[in-house]
Amino acid sequence: MTKVCLVIGAGAGIGGNVGKKFALEGYHTVLCRRSDQEGLDRLVVDIKESGGEATGILLNAAKEDAIEQLVAKVEADIGQIEVVLYNVGSQIGNRSLEDTTLKIFELGWRMATFGLFRLAKALFPLMEERGGGTVLVTSATASVRGNAGQHSHAASMGGRRMLCQTLNAEYASKGIHIAHILIDGAVDAPDTLGKMIGPELFEKLRDAKGREKDGLLLPEKMAETYFHVAQQHRSAWTHELDLRAFSDLAWWNHAP
Amino acid sequence: MTKVCLVIGAGAGIGGNVGKKFALEGYHTVLCRRSDQEGLDRLVVDIKESGGEATGILLNAAKEDAIEQLVAKVEADIGQIEVVLYNVGSQIGNRSLEDTTLKIFELGWRMATFGLFRLAKALFPLMEERGGGTVLVTSATASVRGNAGQHSHAASMGGRRMLCQTLNAEYASKGIHIAHILIDGAVDAPDTLGKMIGPELFEKLRDAKGREKDGLLLPEKMAETYFHVAQQHRSAWTHELDLRAFSDLAWWNHAP
Amino acid sequence: MTKVCLVIGAGAGIGGNVGKKFALEGYHTVLCRRSDQEGLDRLVVDIKESGGEATGILLNAAKEDAIEQLVAKVEADIGQIEVVLYNVGSQIGNRSLEDTTLKIFELGWRMATFGLFRLAKALFPLMEERGGGTVLVTSATASVRGNAGQHSHAASMGGRRMLCQTLNAEYASKGIHIAHILIDGAVDAPDTLGKMIGPELFEKLRDAKGREKDGLLLPEKMAETYFHVAQQHRSAWTHELDLRAFSDLAWWNHAP
Amino acid sequence: MTKVCLVIGAGAGIGGNVGKKFALEGYHTVLCRRSDQEGLDRLVVDIKESGGEATGILLNAAKEDAIEQLVAKVEADIGQIEVVLYNVGSQIGNRSLEDTTLKIFELGWRMATFGLFRLAKALFPLMEERGGGTVLVTSATASVRGNAGQHSHAASMGGRRMLCQTLNAEYASKGIHIAHILIDGAVDAPDTLGKMIGPELFEKLRDAKGREKDGLLLPEKMAETYFHVAQQHRSAWTHELDLRAFSDLAWWNHAP
Repeated sequence: MTKVCLVIGAGAGIGGNVGKKFALEGYHTVLCRRSDQEGLDRLVVDIKESGGEATGILLNAAKEDAIEQLVAKVEADIGQIEVVLYNVGSQIGNRSLEDTTLKIFELGWRMATFGLFRLAKALFPLMEERGGGTVLVTSATASVRGNAGQHSHAASMGGRRMLCQTLNAEYASKGIHIAHILIDGAVDAPDTLGKMIGPELFEKLRDAKGREKDGLLLPEKMAETYFHVAQQHRSAWTHELDLRAFSDLAWWNHAP
Repeated sequence: MTKVCLVIGAGAGIGGNVGKKFALEGYHTVLCRRSDQEGLDRLVVDIKESGGEATGILLNAAKEDAIEQLVAKVEADIGQIEVVLYNVGSQIGNRSLEDTTLKIFELGWRMATFGLFRLAKALFPLMEERGGGTVLVTSATASVRGNAGQHSHAASMGGRRMLCQTLNAEYASKGIHIAHILIDGAVDAPDTLGKMIGPELFEKLRDAKGREKDGLLLPEKMAETYFHVAQQHRSAWTHELDLRAFSDLAWWNHAP
Repeated sequence: MTKVCLVIGAGAGIGGNVGKKFALEGYHTVLCRRSDQEGLDRLVVDIKESGGEATGILLNAAKEDAIEQLVAKVEADIGQIEVVLYNVGSQIGNRSLEDTTLKIFELGWRMATFGLFRLAKALFPLMEERGGGTVLVTSATASVRGNAGQHSHAASMGGRRMLCQTLNAEYASKGIHIAHILIDGAVDAPDTLGKMIGPELFEKLRDAKGREKDGLLLPEKMAETYFHVAQQHRSAWTHELDLRAFSDLAWWNHAP
Repeated sequence: MTKVCLVIGAGAGIGGNVGKKFALEGYHTVLCRRSDQEGLDRLVVDIKESGGEATGILLNAAKEDAIEQLVAKVEADIGQIEVVLYNVGSQIGNRSLEDTTLKIFELGWRMATFGLFRLAKALFPLMEERGGGTVLVTSATASVRGNAGQHSHAASMGGRRMLCQTLNAEYASKGIHIAHILIDGAVDAPDTLGKMIGPELFEKLRDAKGREKDGLLLPEKMAETYFHVAQQHRSAWTHELDLRAFSDLAWWNHAP
């Protein structure tokens, strides 16, 4: 029986790398992202060439019924979703209150909070019936502290964290492991950070902090921890953990 | 010049009592609630008979443009909004994931999170131009921990808390004082708790914990703290505080 | 019957000002500090000249039996301790691990954590028998986050915060109100900050942030909130709150 | 070159199992505990029979110079300490304020807080010189919330958590990985929980929650996560995580 690892939000960073890790460990990975069929194909080909199984699906998670249909389709056509990575974020850089339109604010919530709720509504009854499953949620510093310019991001990720705790309180004892993985730093991810700040700045950042300095979070290394959490024995589950580069200060610290 | 205290979410509990306190201290209090014109009138009459000024307005905060028009109208017709109490909650009692529809989940967000964001968008430019103002936000335990059955409530209040921190980070230095007041317990409020659990159970609860036992939060006493926070000198502002009855355990404690 | 407000840690900043506020509201204030009889006398004289009652006592809170004897003596000679402000800190500026000796680390604990525990041991049986009392604890950012150079300060204040929660869980229902007041910023206090950074830097800081800019916490304004918390009705007690100047970012925020 | 995993606080629960895991992965494990030479020998023999290397040392961590001499001795006689597990707790069950003597309170601090500080003072200069190391700290719910009867435990573990954050802020960028592992539930550990509640109650608890129900944290499963954290790539370190059995509510949740 094919066991599926479903990745919602699969760029060349966390999503792609976690998906690949699970594929190499025997899961059929289903990678979903909003756009860029070519980029998606590259991720799928890479996994296949490494000996894993993968499928790519373009998906607008904010669209009505999109997540619900995805779950149904994957379960019908590919296999049981044993692990899902919810990796859709709402980071849009810093925008003042004035520059954050009602539409942007709502979209952040649709992607970061509502999407996870819809996923749980669609998937948890199936997981519960099968006795369990794992939901890995990529989270951000904004889930635990608001900051200037983070109206949409902080409100949606803060809501998401409370939703994760709610889901955990209701479903952990039914065998569904929900893990809230707080990424507290810049990820070496061309598809997200790279696009947000532009390729030039991104290369500069890589020179300054990344590469052999290991000061940017490396997605393929993060994937090790995502995978470990999904394998934890049910007598010892982690609900919340953080990840940051060794050379970064934690969000609660300031440079002296 | 008339200075206004605007209360969004004004029942016979926190909203009504905080509004009355400010009215007795010289503000013109504008009380808004979704329904029950009669109940609203009673609150207004009570304030007037106590020597204060008050206006009542029925308002559906979740409706498009409702909050924006309210702010414009109050500023045009009554006076400058110096203090606003955002007292709209999203508590609907415990509902399992299955019983929490997409619509309910979204409505919780519209009322608890989006409404505050819209209020800030409409009001903060005015307050900033005048050099300041105060926003008191009634919050709940659900803003800091998710719990079984609290999908809509926790996600929306958790998002709201992060929004408050964001607004504070962006606007405190411009003179706008945002206070997040976490109510950690049952309030002796017939219009909210009383309606949620029904009049009979509410009277039983009052007999068991409330009345001379002071084990239910008394809104007229809470109002003292709301008012104090709004009067704090700008060199010593409180952003977050909690309120609970002396005989209640804090949310993080369990009965031994 | 004389009701006493006991201040342990009374310099010309928070301790002295909170003590004065309570004296002006009818308490006999007992001010204790480790050294500087002259400075202590000045505080006492100032209160008396303002029409309040006050007594000054030099006290080494870290010394064996000192706190226990103080409580006994005040109760025997002056009156019932209804309110106590525990204002002893352990801030010594930033010191690297290497420069923090075992002795310094232990002293921080003796002053910030152990002293409060000893006070509770000595005082709570009396308060419990009388049906209640109030304990105001001045706390610091270090109680909720460690930071480079803060070994002694963070460990002792973090321990103190958990002790406050423990005392609250055990004694709130017995009528003892414990409030943990987190001061998140520099206080305009010549006896503590002024001594730590030296008079010259302190004056520069006052010019840069303080004075009419209100960017340093003003102790006489903070005292208003300390007093308010002590007066809260038992149906609506605050256990934790923060205080910072409007122009300061909260500890969890960074300059953009 | 022998690489050492030093375990301070090695009973038959977390300490022994984490030590064994590291031994099986190629470390020489040094197990330290206060008493019970026989029990200690059993752990060492078990590791050796499983093909690992181990040494047992009786150690009173609260004694002056004990930790400092241990570090020196292990480094001189066995090898470089690459990983250390600080597993000394201060749990003594619930004791009221009255029943918690000054001596007990101080001992809790000596074991849980001061011992870790002394370890860091002795070990970090060596680790820093070598470019890094790992410190795993077993923590408890009491590190994040005080509770009735937890005076000594909460104050010492709360202080310890802030110390961990301080050490992390100062040393992570120097290659020392400090992980604060919050154990939020009962561990299936005969040497600690078993001794605290007695063998009879412990067996009953095992029948009710443990064994095939997996409702007690299994130390050999927890050891997998301890080991994983120590192996994380420096671009993606975890500083804080929690562990609890799937069937347990998190500390912040209550039974409905």
